[in-house]
Amino acid sequence: MTHDNITTNEDSLTTVPQTIEGWCILHQMFRIKWRELRVLDDDERRAVAENTAEAIAAMEHRADGPSAAFSLIGHKGDLMLIHFRKTFEDLNAAELEVSKLRLGDFIKSKSSYLSIVELGLYEFSVRLYAEIAAAGIKSGSPEWKARVDAELTKQRAKLAERLWPKIPANPYVCFYPMDKKRGEAKNWYQLPIDDRRRLMHDHGLIGRRFAGSVTQIISGSTGLDDWEWGVDLFADDPRMFKKLIYEMRFDEASAAYALFGPFYNGIRRSPERLIEILSGTK
Amino acid sequence: MTHDNITTNEDSLTTVPQTIEGWCILHQMFRIKWRELRVLDDDERRAVAENTAEAIAAMEHRADGPSAAFSLIGHKGDLMLIHFRKTFEDLNAAELEVSKLRLGDFIKSKSSYLSIVELGLYEFSVRLYAEIAAAGIKSGSPEWKARVDAELTKQRAKLAERLWPKIPANPYVCFYPMDKKRGEAKNWYQLPIDDRRRLMHDHGLIGRRFAGSVTQIISGSTGLDDWEWGVDLFADDPRMFKKLIYEMRFDEASAAYALFGPFYNGIRRSPERLIEILSGTK
Amino acid sequence: MTHDNITTNEDSLTTVPQTIEGWCILHQMFRIKWRELRVLDDDERRAVAENTAEAIAAMEHRADGPSAAFSLIGHKGDLMLIHFRKTFEDLNAAELEVSKLRLGDFIKSKSSYLSIVELGLYEFSVRLYAEIAAAGIKSGSPEWKARVDAELTKQRAKLAERLWPKIPANPYVCFYPMDKKRGEAKNWYQLPIDDRRRLMHDHGLIGRRFAGSVTQIISGSTGLDDWEWGVDLFADDPRMFKKLIYEMRFDEASAAYALFGPFYNGIRRSPERLIEILSGTK
Amino acid sequence: MTHDNITTNEDSLTTVPQTIEGWCILHQMFRIKWRELRVLDDDERRAVAENTAEAIAAMEHRADGPSAAFSLIGHKGDLMLIHFRKTFEDLNAAELEVSKLRLGDFIKSKSSYLSIVELGLYEFSVRLYAEIAAAGIKSGSPEWKARVDAELTKQRAKLAERLWPKIPANPYVCFYPMDKKRGEAKNWYQLPIDDRRRLMHDHGLIGRRFAGSVTQIISGSTGLDDWEWGVDLFADDPRMFKKLIYEMRFDEASAAYALFGPFYNGIRRSPERLIEILSGTK
Amino acid sequence: MTHDNITTNEDSLTTVPQTIEGWCILHQMFRIKWRELRVLDDDERRAVAENTAEAIAAMEHRADGPSAAFSLIGHKGDLMLIHFRKTFEDLNAAELEVSKLRLGDFIKSKSSYLSIVELGLYEFSVRLYAEIAAAGIKSGSPEWKARVDAELTKQRAKLAERLWPKIPANPYVCFYPMDKKRGEAKNWYQLPIDDRRRLMHDHGLIGRRFAGSVTQIISGSTGLDDWEWGVDLFADDPRMFKKLIYEMRFDEASAAYALFGPFYNGIRRSPERLIEILSGTK
Repeated sequence: MTHDNITTNEDSLTTVPQTIEGWCILHQMFRIKWRELRVLDDDERRAVAENTAEAIAAMEHRADGPSAAFSLIGHKGDLMLIHFRKTFEDLNAAELEVSKLRLGDFIKSKSSYLSIVELGLYEFSVRLYAEIAAAGIKSGSPEWKARVDAELTKQRAKLAERLWPKIPANPYVCFYPMDKKRGEAKNWYQLPIDDRRRLMHDHGLIGRRFAGSVTQIISGSTGLDDWEWGVDLFADDPRMFKKLIYEMRFDEASAAYALFGPFYNGIRRSPERLIEILSGTK
Repeated sequence: MTHDNITTNEDSLTTVPQTIEGWCILHQMFRIKWRELRVLDDDERRAVAENTAEAIAAMEHRADGPSAAFSLIGHKGDLMLIHFRKTFEDLNAAELEVSKLRLGDFIKSKSSYLSIVELGLYEFSVRLYAEIAAAGIKSGSPEWKARVDAELTKQRAKLAERLWPKIPANPYVCFYPMDKKRGEAKNWYQLPIDDRRRLMHDHGLIGRRFAGSVTQIISGSTGLDDWEWGVDLFADDPRMFKKLIYEMRFDEASAAYALFGPFYNGIRRSPERLIEILSGTK
Repeated sequence: MTHDNITTNEDSLTTVPQTIEGWCILHQMFRIKWRELRVLDDDERRAVAENTAEAIAAMEHRADGPSAAFSLIGHKGDLMLIHFRKTFEDLNAAELEVSKLRLGDFIKSKSSYLSIVELGLYEFSVRLYAEIAAAGIKSGSPEWKARVDAELTKQRAKLAERLWPKIPANPYVCFYPMDKKRGEAKNWYQLPIDDRRRLMHDHGLIGRRFAGSVTQIISGSTGLDDWEWGVDLFADDPRMFKKLIYEMRFDEASAAYALFGPFYNGIRRSPERLIEILSGTK
Repeated sequence: MTHDNITTNEDSLTTVPQTIEGWCILHQMFRIKWRELRVLDDDERRAVAENTAEAIAAMEHRADGPSAAFSLIGHKGDLMLIHFRKTFEDLNAAELEVSKLRLGDFIKSKSSYLSIVELGLYEFSVRLYAEIAAAGIKSGSPEWKARVDAELTKQRAKLAERLWPKIPANPYVCFYPMDKKRGEAKNWYQLPIDDRRRLMHDHGLIGRRFAGSVTQIISGSTGLDDWEWGVDLFADDPRMFKKLIYEMRFDEASAAYALFGPFYNGIRRSPERLIEILSGTK
Repeated sequence: MTHDNITTNEDSLTTVPQTIEGWCILHQMFRIKWRELRVLDDDERRAVAENTAEAIAAMEHRADGPSAAFSLIGHKGDLMLIHFRKTFEDLNAAELEVSKLRLGDFIKSKSSYLSIVELGLYEFSVRLYAEIAAAGIKSGSPEWKARVDAELTKQRAKLAERLWPKIPANPYVCFYPMDKKRGEAKNWYQLPIDDRRRLMHDHGLIGRRFAGSVTQIISGSTGLDDWEWGVDLFADDPRMFKKLIYEMRFDEASAAYALFGPFYNGIRRSPERLIEILSGTK
């Protein structure tokens, strides 16, 4: 094995797609201790439920980033909270706030996921790197960086709605983390950037075919949590999650290069519905 | 590595087999806290048992989808409930109902599985895609979609009994989840659809040889749970589970491409038998 | 990749070795809650111990299949019960019986394994398939099945002692589950049956060299538990377990194709010795 | 396969890069039992918080090595302590000290990591080995060892600040363990040392581009914990963790050879802030 | 794939290196329930500590095999006991004895490892097999076995001190289990014995370079526990563990063929020091 063809480090910059970032996200999955809730008398249990509902209602409309509550289906948890915030400090504050709820005594943390809303700009990056190179600017040089930063600033403004989205109001959510494979023969991170661009383009077309029925929010978590990305899908019909992800699995970007973590399927719960569920009235 | 031969995205549609869907399914596996049940006096314990049996009896005959109860063998759990329902909201309602049973204080959730009854139409899809292509209709076009949808509607009607089955009455059940392998050299999702069709056809012939002794219900769970499919087998003799799955393991579709999750073997329990088991009378 | 050389499904029958089955087996591994046992006063603790010993003594001599008790070494558990029974229903009854012992309050289920005594008839199958083919009978045809069934019936009678063995009385036991590898390059299930026959033959010779010192009972668990086979070895000297399995590891059937689960080593406990251990007298 | 080209053992010495070591490090990750803390009355809870804060304040300024406290984000823990000490005995003393805090009753150990600050001297080693070889000194000979040891002593003096660093004061920390891959085709430990040197050099250039915004402390843990290295990153903006590690993932040293363990993201907590958090005042 | 070149089973005997065995070993790793210990009043806690120290002191000097106690660093446990005994029955007796200590109420079993001191005689085996073959004796014949057994008896006498060692008195211990890889391309168990002999020889030279600073005791656990070997290293400076194992990792036997389990690092505790630690005096 020779490494004569190793790219020099500065050239290697142009193999990394640019990304822009928005909300910091924390998913929290909890088991509810139904038995201990049931031991409470009706008034106390209702008080716990109302205290929770008030907190969720307030969190749903925070100026510095919304939260939402979901019932999870199956043993992976009973309650999932998604928090969108501006900073990790704010996410930690959200965690502490939840732990202080009266419900805090009746839930057990099962899992969580930390990530940041991310748009991966493959088309943009390949085009931009080529333009800058054509202008005779050396990659990694101060001019190069200035040019890239200037363009990213424009992209951030242009795509602000996708970087700082609301939590979609659909009744069903599907969350899962994923990696790109770094196998001994198939290694996403060693494909030429233009191949990756084409694969991501084709991959994106599938998502676009479901545009009317599934809304997706992609977040990056390299260095933040145990997988490289988190994916949230929102829909009115959860059959669409299966259909979309099954179609994508045949696409080369997924078929050959995607590794998937656990899947969490949930149902959006309004504060009012939370009161019913937690107080056990129906 | 070159990607010149990447199929265009619209052509890629015809590599995905069509599926049709029926019941939403939730499997719930519970450990029974025998010790805490035994602490109850006989009348209380019997009341718990009868309350459970009544609920299961009612669930077995729900108009909007049946449930069934099984004793599990071994440490993976003592009780498995299978719920067939029309929606995920209904499945969550079933979960909540179970958590509210008096038995809810004496069980601990060990595992679960979320899926949707699925028929994968390989033969149908290959034939249909060829017919539409022969008619000069571009894949992915509105005409293409209309034609596919129309044919799927017919299939759903024709195969309604297999999409919305009853829970078979056999005494023994075997449940397991599975994936198709996406290895670096062997990748199910990158085989041509016609190869997959042939492999699934051969695979199906083995199942057909066991038609008299094993009934199978396949559900899809891509995007819903941590494996791509769930398989429920029902039989009068559990030796048939071993024989069927062992034979299939030599079939190329399983030998080269199947990955298996945990296996759960259970015994169907009538409400009457549940009372005996839970109250400890025999 | 082409599949022109896929065997037709009926021919594929002759790639599957025939098996014959005996006892249904459940291994149960428990942690003993020593601390809670010690809290009892001496008489109560002795009563628990005696109640357990009586139940084990009765189970050891059941007409419908024996049980045996072992101390496990290490943190995987303190007590292992092995139950041989005629049906899964009987195994479930054994589980329920154990849970109802007074000891049931002082043990915690750690693991278990469900399987059925199995003899894999490679030599027999290869010879029989060849004979039937030579007689011009099509594989999978009614004649073929009748002939195979008739021969299996003879084998079951001839090998009845190995299908329905007693639990060997040796003081040491070693239990482990295993799989045959289905790798991308090395796949047991895609080897020609005659290659597998030769590998199993050579593999068996090693076991035969230990015939005087190690007794093995092989059970099949494809479709029943999370590995394909369970292996129980019994010996007077546990060094023989290490020696036998180490030698086998160099044999091609193990070296290239075997995957091993956890190993459980235990010591047979008579009812009398169980009383001493559980009551803490020595 | 032939092994004619196996290096003799003494030559193999020059394939191992020299390392120099500093602080022994223990990371401790704890879940806080909020519920049990809340049961305390306000004074008691404040006493627990103040006792903790005093201990942390003292540990931050120990002469024999500092400690620091962080809030963790997500379910992997609520509190992370990092201890830098001179010996493993001192690290064990730190553990015991934490277990004796009044907070010791309200935390549960979730994870930990044991390592030693390490500088891997690839450039230095390759140059030194070449120089010594050019001087005609046999690798592994007493002269060779003396020469290497003398040079390492100089390096230790020169790089003392990096071997015995303070814990950076930035608000955000990112900790993760990692391995170099030893796959069947891609094996870091079988690359020629000069290839590894070049890969590490290129890898280091990426880190250097982030010099202003991310401080990293690398520790070695081969033989000490379950991965080969631990990495601590410190920054004012946690987005930098994602950006840095994502860029590195495209670098050959990471893309082809790095395996990553769990990622822990935390926020530095002063003793004053700890009091607020633990006493629940805000 | 053809198997024409499969060695006949009797020839295969000479591919297995001979081993000789000594002490049976049980490692026990415990978490100490500090909180519950602290609840005791000082006298009771001191009584627990003294009772433990007395038992450990006695176990350290047993005629039938010594035990030793270590503090573990990190969350994998607080206390590790290593027991050397003549039989598995004796190891089980040691377990039961520990469970009956007053400390038994304040520890929780976290892990364990069961193995037998083993010397793998590669050089000896290759030479002996060649000599016997040169003498015209058929491998596997009674003469062959008698000759091998006779030579092993001599080896056992000659190497008795290494088979029945004392537990080294150094303050630091490092324990880990390991396997030899059986990959699809790289398979230790399918290398010719002479290649393995050379690799083990080179591997051993590294250990010999550390002879003055690290003492190692290798135990075999094929068929006994979940890895094939256990390794205990003892040293005055734990940096030597890192240095030794890091150097070995570049050696072909480790680089290409070793798989490692969890690493446990501990500090030897005398009975006197145990009293201090458990009673919390310092």
